[in-house]
Amino acid sequence: MMEVSEAIRNRKSVRRFSDAKVSDAAIKELLELAAQAPSAGNTQEWRFVVVRERETKQRLSEAYMIGRKYQLEAPVIIVVCADMEAIGDAYGERGKSLYAFQDTAAAVENMLLAAAGMGLATCWLGAFNEQAVRNALAIPERIRPVAMITLGYAGENIAKNMRKPLAEAAFSEIYGNPFK
Amino acid sequence: MMEVSEAIRNRKSVRRFSDAKVSDAAIKELLELAAQAPSAGNTQEWRFVVVRERETKQRLSEAYMIGRKYQLEAPVIIVVCADMEAIGDAYGERGKSLYAFQDTAAAVENMLLAAAGMGLATCWLGAFNEQAVRNALAIPERIRPVAMITLGYAGENIAKNMRKPLAEAAFSEIYGNPFK
Repeated sequence: MMEVSEAIRNRKSVRRFSDAKVSDAAIKELLELAAQAPSAGNTQEWRFVVVRERETKQRLSEAYMIGRKYQLEAPVIIVVCADMEAIGDAYGERGKSLYAFQDTAAAVENMLLAAAGMGLATCWLGAFNEQAVRNALAIPERIRPVAMITLGYAGENIAKNMRKPLAEAAFSEIYGNPFK
Repeated sequence: MMEVSEAIRNRKSVRRFSDAKVSDAAIKELLELAAQAPSAGNTQEWRFVVVRERETKQRLSEAYMIGRKYQLEAPVIIVVCADMEAIGDAYGERGKSLYAFQDTAAAVENMLLAAAGMGLATCWLGAFNEQAVRNALAIPERIRPVAMITLGYAGENIAKNMRKPLAEAAFSEIYGNPFK
């Protein structure tokens, strides 16, 4: 049991995981909570591929573009995709170039926070070759993989990244006018 | 005090608000929690313009493209923007066409959930003319308004939209392979 603001403050990016297994029930709960996110016109264009097998992780690892490939050794990787046809049919270009990424990101954030509330650790990965991820998981062309979430129990004790002062990001009425 | 999974399940889009004022402290808390979201390389490219004055709401209302303009009469509108220069400098095209929208959406979702935990109601609006919003709030060209969040106390008692069965969105190892 963790209060929502505490989960938001506690969530951080963990890159090394212990060998402890994540239960299938916990994964299912996270997916159900992901799907509670809002989406444009309730399109629910998010799709999730849950990866638990070593061979699949190995294939995903090859699609991962920047260093720290050890991250892909997490107990679970959830590949989050957007059905571009579904959102495009509903909202055209704005749907495909904006809502698709917002809606799936809101679903991801739900998962990260719920995981924090369950004592699980996560990291949101974005730097991958999308076509290579498609090939690795037999994802159809109309479906775009937009994030990979690594999931497990923390295998490192790291601090959360620092945040900038709110005054640099928040304004009142007019852009640039300090928030009070 | 609300548990994180309960906040995720309870959050819904509310379009009519009561006249009750939202305290400045509550708004500040929501902005601080928004900024606890993850972002690519911790770029924190989110920017927030908090709108509480009637005249500013009126200008925003003109930028809102679809019906239900009464929504813009909410006690507070938080216009969420992405600093495209900041994310572009860090990640180039992928940053500007993907991470900018994901990072700001994660910040928005934090706000929506934290608001639910505080007994506040919200709605995420996406259908607006971005240049008109820029003009209304003197937002510079390098800053892109990507969402408007209406905030207040609920003035209607509506049900949350239905969700599709998880089986339509979740797969194991390979796209299309049922999640178990």
